[in-house]
Amino acid sequence: MLCRVTFDKTRAVSYHAITMPETKLEAWSEAELQDLLSSRVKGGFGAFWVAGSRPSEPPPVPPIVLTGGIPDPDELPIEELIECSNAVLRREGPAALRYGGHQGHPGLREWLAEETKKRDGLDVEADNFTITNGISGALINVSETFLNDGEVGLVESPTFPGGAGAMQNCLCDIVGVTVDEDGLVPEVLEQVIEEQGAEGKRVKLLYTVPNFQNPTGTTLAVERRERVVEICQQHGVIIAEDDAYGDVRFEGEKPPSLFALARGKGVVFMGSFSKTVATGLRIGWTLSEQQVTDALLQTRYDLGVSPWVQRTILEFAETGKFAKHLDKMNAIYKRKRDVMLAALEERCSRYATWTRPEGGYFLWLTLAETVDPKKLQQAAYDIGVAYVGGFAFHIGDTGHNTIRLNYSFAKEDDISEAIMRLGRALEEASQG
Amino acid sequence: MLCRVTFDKTRAVSYHAITMPETKLEAWSEAELQDLLSSRVKGGFGAFWVAGSRPSEPPPVPPIVLTGGIPDPDELPIEELIECSNAVLRREGPAALRYGGHQGHPGLREWLAEETKKRDGLDVEADNFTITNGISGALINVSETFLNDGEVGLVESPTFPGGAGAMQNCLCDIVGVTVDEDGLVPEVLEQVIEEQGAEGKRVKLLYTVPNFQNPTGTTLAVERRERVVEICQQHGVIIAEDDAYGDVRFEGEKPPSLFALARGKGVVFMGSFSKTVATGLRIGWTLSEQQVTDALLQTRYDLGVSPWVQRTILEFAETGKFAKHLDKMNAIYKRKRDVMLAALEERCSRYATWTRPEGGYFLWLTLAETVDPKKLQQAAYDIGVAYVGGFAFHIGDTGHNTIRLNYSFAKEDDISEAIMRLGRALEEASQG
Repeated sequence: MLCRVTFDKTRAVSYHAITMPETKLEAWSEAELQDLLSSRVKGGFGAFWVAGSRPSEPPPVPPIVLTGGIPDPDELPIEELIECSNAVLRREGPAALRYGGHQGHPGLREWLAEETKKRDGLDVEADNFTITNGISGALINVSETFLNDGEVGLVESPTFPGGAGAMQNCLCDIVGVTVDEDGLVPEVLEQVIEEQGAEGKRVKLLYTVPNFQNPTGTTLAVERRERVVEICQQHGVIIAEDDAYGDVRFEGEKPPSLFALARGKGVVFMGSFSKTVATGLRIGWTLSEQQVTDALLQTRYDLGVSPWVQRTILEFAETGKFAKHLDKMNAIYKRKRDVMLAALEERCSRYATWTRPEGGYFLWLTLAETVDPKKLQQAAYDIGVAYVGGFAFHIGDTGHNTIRLNYSFAKEDDISEAIMRLGRALEEASQG
Repeated sequence: MLCRVTFDKTRAVSYHAITMPETKLEAWSEAELQDLLSSRVKGGFGAFWVAGSRPSEPPPVPPIVLTGGIPDPDELPIEELIECSNAVLRREGPAALRYGGHQGHPGLREWLAEETKKRDGLDVEADNFTITNGISGALINVSETFLNDGEVGLVESPTFPGGAGAMQNCLCDIVGVTVDEDGLVPEVLEQVIEEQGAEGKRVKLLYTVPNFQNPTGTTLAVERRERVVEICQQHGVIIAEDDAYGDVRFEGEKPPSLFALARGKGVVFMGSFSKTVATGLRIGWTLSEQQVTDALLQTRYDLGVSPWVQRTILEFAETGKFAKHLDKMNAIYKRKRDVMLAALEERCSRYATWTRPEGGYFLWLTLAETVDPKKLQQAAYDIGVAYVGGFAFHIGDTGHNTIRLNYSFAKEDDISEAIMRLGRALEEASQG
């Protein structure tokens, strides 16, 4: 013990001696630290994701950013949120600024129940919902409620890495299930579950994004939805259904959720205002049958997410601003997608093929064999267009011949320019 | 599979058939569900806490509430928060409404670093901090970073049950360490660690509230702080230091934190705006040396707490409103504590003894042997005063002869009345 503290009778005088300005912190040795950390950290599960979030060196040319799953920053409903937040704080400030409980604000859960009744015709109530720190918070909760050390969690391949990380934090094994242009492949799902079972492994959870999947933008075909629910119910596998992008639909009709098809049995539906309003709200939710909802609440110790923000979003929804905003944004995203598709057709068709989603935020490109992905990465960096390489969404060292393009964030005018730059980069990286 | 779905070529028509209004949800059987749930739920760790949060039947007389750890609802800085929130959204809306990362807003972390430098004289930087969903979120993070299944986490006895729950959610064993009028007893701490070691158990983490402890209101004596740090460093036990109430000090001088005494080594300090501003903000933080901070971030998958609220609190702090509010509130809480102490002296001295904290939110009563705690519970309920029975803060069926009284929440005028009612209840429950 290095600190020098002396005491007088008041116990209040002499400790200043040890807190001289700018006392350097001390640390455990690396070996001591490694001995102290839990298996969650030792496994390094979080590392790839944390590393991916860290800022890198500034590139030579300011890039046009086609990376994150972020709403259009020029079209955020800022004045509407100010209006709603002010109304909430003035009308119900003490309640909005007090712990709201793990399950979340009853009013917001009632609104969600009414919406679900109207849309899916399901007999759900406010008590079937919990409010979470986005879908990320929801998936952490679902994972902790179902996954034990050494059990198996299934993810899509490719998948959103943060989701896989949340599951791995429960010390489960992660196995990928192929996604094609119609989404998750049921035959592969069944095969994986049976293979794992044959190895004595218990598959417990499937994490899936059936609408406008992240990263591929594909939507799970309706006949496949039935089959996925059937397979999971048969094998006792809980489905964690991530519908982050489901309401960002600007063409076609929304297919039934896995939750609706299963009538709730064995499915936890996870929704969010992140992609429809703003990712910085950190308001998502779970919907599940009552027993599962009760179980979910038994692994929550965070004292709930901010009732202030929850009530602001409810005000935004109940005053009709949410529906209006969603319509406006979907029209904007449709135009942006069209601009990106047209530019790709014009600039990139020699070097890649891509998905054509009816909604969501992403296109998924598969590079022609003639394109060197590493050269493309360097060329795109030099020319000034930023995307996420497909390998980031795969387990293991694969997916290098794919890239994810986001069209929600960049300005409409910048999208054509970005794809022109991508075309030039593709040309430079092409051996054809 | 019970759903009836037929398909046509567009895949878009016939699924309405299965989503008739008010389709009842289906559920796993209880046996199926139990087979699916993780050990975290099966252990029932969360149950007592969730159950405690559920509304009970309305009592016969509207009670004066001396229960939760909630700031005075009449004195919340509502207009100031509106002003700060509006300024933030108008000035930096797109950044405030976008994912802010797991570590949290750099500006807020810089402010925290400056405050810590000024107060504790420690050489800390923004990078030593992470922003969390209150101290609850921080303790979940610390627990997941250090605690493995079957290892031992230490809590104070009595303790805040949500903290113990967050640790137990990592499937560790929980052992209590006695708290007396000077806080945690170092001799007992050392003894418990050694006993556990002798049984082949690894003690990994100590969760402690050294300032105005929840529930007892006691403050860890300075000489004990040195000893606690020394014992934990010797035995390789990480200290999770919860300073929720440390700035709610209206008498005496703040003792050095365990973090400062340890110069950061082996201590994660956890702070919060919950008790100094509002519990509904859900903004807390961790402070730790760099390697530990990096490790903490490797078990975060929640994509961070709301940057909007983080930036609002920073605005509140930087414009001087926070310091002013804290001074105002501490004067209010001092008066409320004095009112409660005077009323207790007048009404309850025959039936109980109590702590006399220099800050925080709670008094802790130890009932005289002549008082029947069960009768007291019923009498208090009938007469209309609500408190939390001390057993709620103990591991196992003990602590029945203690109660926690909160003075921050009730109106000043109601506190005397509440204690008068408590005095009547004590009299009714007394055999003396």
